[in-house]
Amino acid sequence: MQITKTTIEVRYAETDQMGVVHHSNYFVWFELGRSHFIRDLGFQYHEMEKEGVLSPVTDIQASYKHPARYGETLTVKTWVKDYDGLRVVYGYEVINEEGMLCVIGSSTHVCVKKDSFRPISIRTHFPAWHEAYEKIKSTIK
Amino acid sequence: MQITKTTIEVRYAETDQMGVVHHSNYFVWFELGRSHFIRDLGFQYHEMEKEGVLSPVTDIQASYKHPARYGETLTVKTWVKDYDGLRVVYGYEVINEEGMLCVIGSSTHVCVKKDSFRPISIRTHFPAWHEAYEKIKSTIK
Amino acid sequence: MQITKTTIEVRYAETDQMGVVHHSNYFVWFELGRSHFIRDLGFQYHEMEKEGVLSPVTDIQASYKHPARYGETLTVKTWVKDYDGLRVVYGYEVINEEGMLCVIGSSTHVCVKKDSFRPISIRTHFPAWHEAYEKIKSTIK
Amino acid sequence: MQITKTTIEVRYAETDQMGVVHHSNYFVWFELGRSHFIRDLGFQYHEMEKEGVLSPVTDIQASYKHPARYGETLTVKTWVKDYDGLRVVYGYEVINEEGMLCVIGSSTHVCVKKDSFRPISIRTHFPAWHEAYEKIKSTIK
Repeated sequence: MQITKTTIEVRYAETDQMGVVHHSNYFVWFELGRSHFIRDLGFQYHEMEKEGVLSPVTDIQASYKHPARYGETLTVKTWVKDYDGLRVVYGYEVINEEGMLCVIGSSTHVCVKKDSFRPISIRTHFPAWHEAYEKIKSTIK
Repeated sequence: MQITKTTIEVRYAETDQMGVVHHSNYFVWFELGRSHFIRDLGFQYHEMEKEGVLSPVTDIQASYKHPARYGETLTVKTWVKDYDGLRVVYGYEVINEEGMLCVIGSSTHVCVKKDSFRPISIRTHFPAWHEAYEKIKSTIK
Repeated sequence: MQITKTTIEVRYAETDQMGVVHHSNYFVWFELGRSHFIRDLGFQYHEMEKEGVLSPVTDIQASYKHPARYGETLTVKTWVKDYDGLRVVYGYEVINEEGMLCVIGSSTHVCVKKDSFRPISIRTHFPAWHEAYEKIKSTIK
Repeated sequence: MQITKTTIEVRYAETDQMGVVHHSNYFVWFELGRSHFIRDLGFQYHEMEKEGVLSPVTDIQASYKHPARYGETLTVKTWVKDYDGLRVVYGYEVINEEGMLCVIGSSTHVCVKKDSFRPISIRTHFPAWHEAYEKIKSTIK
């Protein structure tokens, strides 16, 4: 099963007055992890956009277990949890240097036309992506 | 049942190259809605922090129904979905000017000591808040 | 001289671990102030974008005098400092509830074609905007 | 003369609907560059904060020459332009993969007590930092 690891150095601007990373930033890091996962798969998300297709989030979720802080280097693990030809569900874990789980999350994505935000089938419009995600899906037990 | 309405004017910086609001910004708006809900209840979140107590998010979730865009004025509705003396669960809806539901979400919060991030009981440490949340809870069917 | 006032309620996510507003957020507020200034002038920035023209920042500057904090309501004052048919220079002040000057700044903007980022003349392409800015300019001593 | 290079991978959330990086994000990257510069000098900014001292920005400035886009990897160059025992002035350049200058900027910082935001002398309170910055200053023409 493909798991992509992304290294994140916490930025000062990502903290809030609690003295820890503001919870909204993890979604930006998930997005970076997703970008890297796709790249590791042999694709580039911005190539999809050049063809007039976007892949917006339809659902996102995170559970916060341990706060991350400025000065820390974190690892975002990204993998695929599910795929059905229309929707991709990604899973994420953010781990700190001591190996502690900071955040666990997931996000669901569809593909839509940039002009109309009308959903399109990944299977039909991006057969190479479809094949790659089908292959990944077969490795998920 | 208390529902607090917060008006949001979409900021240019909140858009991304999809031409719509980046999904992470809704969590910042939820937070603003929560802040206003607490104020409408007769409290101030920053007063809690002055006593060395924080109220971090433990779980957050959003489902995206319709994209919001720069130039739009949105309404965030915030209410309490659940409370048990330790945890508060807030619900949110983001509605655009045409009355379309853009995003629906929820977040769960605990209270912790600022120094240690150790959870404390709202019931014990903030009896006035506890009473107000208990009263709200009684109005949730 | 036209001065547009924008009310800003400091958002929790805009603070950093210094316990004050992170300096980068003032530029987002300047942008909101600019947006309102243009609206008060009788235009809408997003209408310009619909015609395939953008108005990016070419230079921006801020001096920080007094930190703003969560729980505060601020006023952003926006005005035009200079205009030459190609470039608009805006001035900004951020004032807190006690009337203290928190930040003073300025930004310079040109108009460019969205496709190429090639500069265009405001005078030629947006004569109504040009006239309005010329009129403002005449009020600047 | 010490110049620290920081690699930045443009994040999707850092773009806006112009299709390029929103101008406020460069200040976050400058901050990361500054953090690395200090680390290369043998210090850690978060160690200063542990002693109850902050180093806020008093002035910041950027000139935008060429837009950066999602999918690009950038280099932030950070160096010291001036130091007088109280204030440090940093210079920054953001360069894209083709070697084009995207943004040039500078920022001025003082040290203040966390409790009061009252300025303190770097020379007096952080003699090792002072010595290092004096040494750097001697390499500036």
